[in-house]
Amino acid sequence: MTVAVLNALSRPLLEGKLPEGVEPLWFSDTDELMALAPRAQVAWLDMIKPPVAAEAISLMEGLKWYNAMSSGVDWLPLPILRARGVALTNGAGIHAQTVSEYAVMGMLTMAKGWREVVRAQDRHEWLMEPPGKRELLDAEVLVIGAGEIGSRIAEMLRVFGAKVTSARRRPGPGDLGQNEWQGALGRFDWVILIVPSTPETTGMFGADQFAAMKPGASLLNFARGTVLDQDALLAAIDSGHLGGAFLDVTTPEPLPSDHPLWSRQNVHISMHLSGRAQDALLARGTARFLGNLERYCRGEALEHQVDLSQGY
Amino acid sequence: MTVAVLNALSRPLLEGKLPEGVEPLWFSDTDELMALAPRAQVAWLDMIKPPVAAEAISLMEGLKWYNAMSSGVDWLPLPILRARGVALTNGAGIHAQTVSEYAVMGMLTMAKGWREVVRAQDRHEWLMEPPGKRELLDAEVLVIGAGEIGSRIAEMLRVFGAKVTSARRRPGPGDLGQNEWQGALGRFDWVILIVPSTPETTGMFGADQFAAMKPGASLLNFARGTVLDQDALLAAIDSGHLGGAFLDVTTPEPLPSDHPLWSRQNVHISMHLSGRAQDALLARGTARFLGNLERYCRGEALEHQVDLSQGY
Repeated sequence: MTVAVLNALSRPLLEGKLPEGVEPLWFSDTDELMALAPRAQVAWLDMIKPPVAAEAISLMEGLKWYNAMSSGVDWLPLPILRARGVALTNGAGIHAQTVSEYAVMGMLTMAKGWREVVRAQDRHEWLMEPPGKRELLDAEVLVIGAGEIGSRIAEMLRVFGAKVTSARRRPGPGDLGQNEWQGALGRFDWVILIVPSTPETTGMFGADQFAAMKPGASLLNFARGTVLDQDALLAAIDSGHLGGAFLDVTTPEPLPSDHPLWSRQNVHISMHLSGRAQDALLARGTARFLGNLERYCRGEALEHQVDLSQGY
Repeated sequence: MTVAVLNALSRPLLEGKLPEGVEPLWFSDTDELMALAPRAQVAWLDMIKPPVAAEAISLMEGLKWYNAMSSGVDWLPLPILRARGVALTNGAGIHAQTVSEYAVMGMLTMAKGWREVVRAQDRHEWLMEPPGKRELLDAEVLVIGAGEIGSRIAEMLRVFGAKVTSARRRPGPGDLGQNEWQGALGRFDWVILIVPSTPETTGMFGADQFAAMKPGASLLNFARGTVLDQDALLAAIDSGHLGGAFLDVTTPEPLPSDHPLWSRQNVHISMHLSGRAQDALLARGTARFLGNLERYCRGEALEHQVDLSQGY
């Protein structure tokens, strides 16, 4: 038997679909989780707080495989998982559609000044001039990070006629490599951050990178708040050099209500909603887990396994 | 010589580029326009009010070709142009990119409940749950009207994974014809109106059509306010049958500040801004006019000529 410790929230979606030979142990609260944890060979917890996950994992001495529904796994105790030789799978890809839709929406709303139209409607005021007149057609866009989300964003933007360049660790033809994109920043009207959060990407976008951007260009961050230097971002906004910022992620989250980012007229805060702005999240996460559980039971390689030496 | 009466606003873009044999007469105000009108063989006025255009056209007894930058030509005195055998060209296509961007933006902002995020940011409030969780992926979309704008919208939506059906007078494979789309309305999550404004399309979307829509579906109107019955729209909103409406066009325009449409929580008013939300409008209009002026001087057929018996 394979013992799987599972969140009772996913029980309606999983029950009756688990492969033969899997014994599910459902937990409904933290106490139940901690009591069951020592028996876990497989665990899919999710929808719990990071410190609770860390404590449970520390108790899972026989754990072979930990499944996470998130794409980013920086909130998990990666050194413990690595030291114990646990396989970690993530939800890379199951947020790709909705985050990409969100990114395109963010660019379009910035290009057209849509927020001003919303506010005008709230005042019952018919604007005579468009508050934004940019188009995505022919816009030069740099997507930094070319996982499933970055690739999907690029695919969508190309149909609008945008000229999209990808920056990635292992550049293909036309891509920019790790040491190339910084020197090319001045070319782009839009820069989109969608890299995984790792020690290497933390703070990768700071004062030097903002200064290298084209004046008036816009930055969108769908990675993690820590990927950029938020003080440098504010300085670039306040100097007028940066045309606008769309931040799905911030440091910290939630952003305190007195934080200056809230009220900058060209900063858009989307409250880390992008990945969850979909009806299908749990269904997709369940399908992903069940597919991997079949593979696990057959002794096959798992899909979307995280490289614990890289952190994604 | 071909005498062309032209708006002085376009002089900086046209001067030095007019073909040999064209004598431009520039007008800067209504009096100059009326004084020059009787000499016009070619006219591109635009950026003037419809009654002024109508009066000027009535004076243009030798007019051979009238150029308009708008796509819709319902604001022009079509019977006079038709009676005099004047060729009318319009701007069909030069708004296609920006109106299509606007339509996709409208759908995305409705799908994600973006307006609620804007308002939350204005309150410095971090939302914990996405106010909208729909995706364009697998959404069933009906685009009624398959000119350049409708076709471009469909092309953009397909890359998002939406299932797009076009309704048009002359249906191609997979399209719905004039007598078919009404019976199919119940299938669609989104219906987009982008038909030309003609006597035939006036009031084409009324109580029966709203009733036939799928409950909770959304309607977007980028055609003309008169294409739909606005009272029936309000009734469909207030009954809860219609999930939402995105109105680039209304009756009348501007919408009076006490009109009920302004304050319905699922009605989005975009103030006929969509076609002008571009930097390139005058440049595109000028290029279009100059191309046709070359053709006119060579005695060739004009492009984008309006069929005056159809009105588009």
